[in-house]
Amino acid sequence: MCEHKGFTVWFTGLSGSGKSTVAEMLYHELRARGMKTEILDGDVVRQNLSKGLGFSKEDRDTNILRIGFVAHLLTRNGVATICCPISPYREARDANRRLIGDFVEVYMHATVEEIAANRDPKGLYKKALAGEIRNFTGVDDPYEPPENPEVVCDTMVESPEESLQKVLTKLKELGYIEDDTIMVRGDRLHSGMTDLRVAETGHVVKEH
Amino acid sequence: MCEHKGFTVWFTGLSGSGKSTVAEMLYHELRARGMKTEILDGDVVRQNLSKGLGFSKEDRDTNILRIGFVAHLLTRNGVATICCPISPYREARDANRRLIGDFVEVYMHATVEEIAANRDPKGLYKKALAGEIRNFTGVDDPYEPPENPEVVCDTMVESPEESLQKVLTKLKELGYIEDDTIMVRGDRLHSGMTDLRVAETGHVVKEH
Repeated sequence: MCEHKGFTVWFTGLSGSGKSTVAEMLYHELRARGMKTEILDGDVVRQNLSKGLGFSKEDRDTNILRIGFVAHLLTRNGVATICCPISPYREARDANRRLIGDFVEVYMHATVEEIAANRDPKGLYKKALAGEIRNFTGVDDPYEPPENPEVVCDTMVESPEESLQKVLTKLKELGYIEDDTIMVRGDRLHSGMTDLRVAETGHVVKEH
Repeated sequence: MCEHKGFTVWFTGLSGSGKSTVAEMLYHELRARGMKTEILDGDVVRQNLSKGLGFSKEDRDTNILRIGFVAHLLTRNGVATICCPISPYREARDANRRLIGDFVEVYMHATVEEIAANRDPKGLYKKALAGEIRNFTGVDDPYEPPENPEVVCDTMVESPEESLQKVLTKLKELGYIEDDTIMVRGDRLHSGMTDLRVAETGHVVKEH
């Protein structure tokens, strides 16, 4: 395996918008290209880097900046780094963009109404909308969409494959990969790096 | 620059024992060999990963495990990762050893008495010994020396170059580098990755 230039693909969007799903698919695409790849997912990172932090603006920002610090270290060492925390605040995302440089922001767009109606298997949105969960992004906690993301995926009308294709095409355009053809089809092994649930996606299955 | 196998060199020892000094020198040696290298220093990491943590056993362990998590990500992506936090507790260091696998532990030995007498430019030991600073490792907070470190440097009698040479020789023995000859002599630019003070070392100068 020889050198590729490192970069960070930063997925941002509401819980349930499909960040981890497309992140997992992208992970397998990059691996299929012989690239070094890591996923820094919100929940996994909270376990390892940010235990004890809550969901205030300050704590969320601290969490996002920590992920950015680690992504920066990986990126400058040639790793294709995929980050998929909600990252609701624009300023913290932009701070990471400035730090990392090779930064590809992917906005996974979906409305609260659509997610609550169609992809809320744990009933989290229903609980948040009923006031039973507090500080839930998009319900009673803000989400600031990116102003100039490199990629916008309208996950209400696109399939995960279509979103993945958009990301690959942008990575090719930016010179980070040579070929943007989707190489992995069918079930993908779960990377173990996200807390993705099988039922949610149909595309990523748990590794045994 | 093509692929090297990643590994972690983990310096442990009292504050003032010379961890950062030899870490900086090692950084320049590895860079001179065309290797990807990062330093994760105690204080720099506390800023970026562990703000808010204190100096209780639990908080110290959390800090060390976070450094280990990041070192693991870097190591498995081919980075020669140098860590130099005090890391007073054996169990946390050993947990990182198990996680990382390619783990070279370097024990920087010195006694409190010797450091307090000869290399305490900020007077921290004097304050700790007078009870003015609390939770100071080696004074009123424990330090558990490693039982089977790969390298022991007796910094009370060895020069930093001699300690560096021991580390390089061990890295060669373990197959991580081919040549253990010291390549960089004289002043070395400060990596910016440790909080090393110039006065302490005579060997590492601030980058301008």
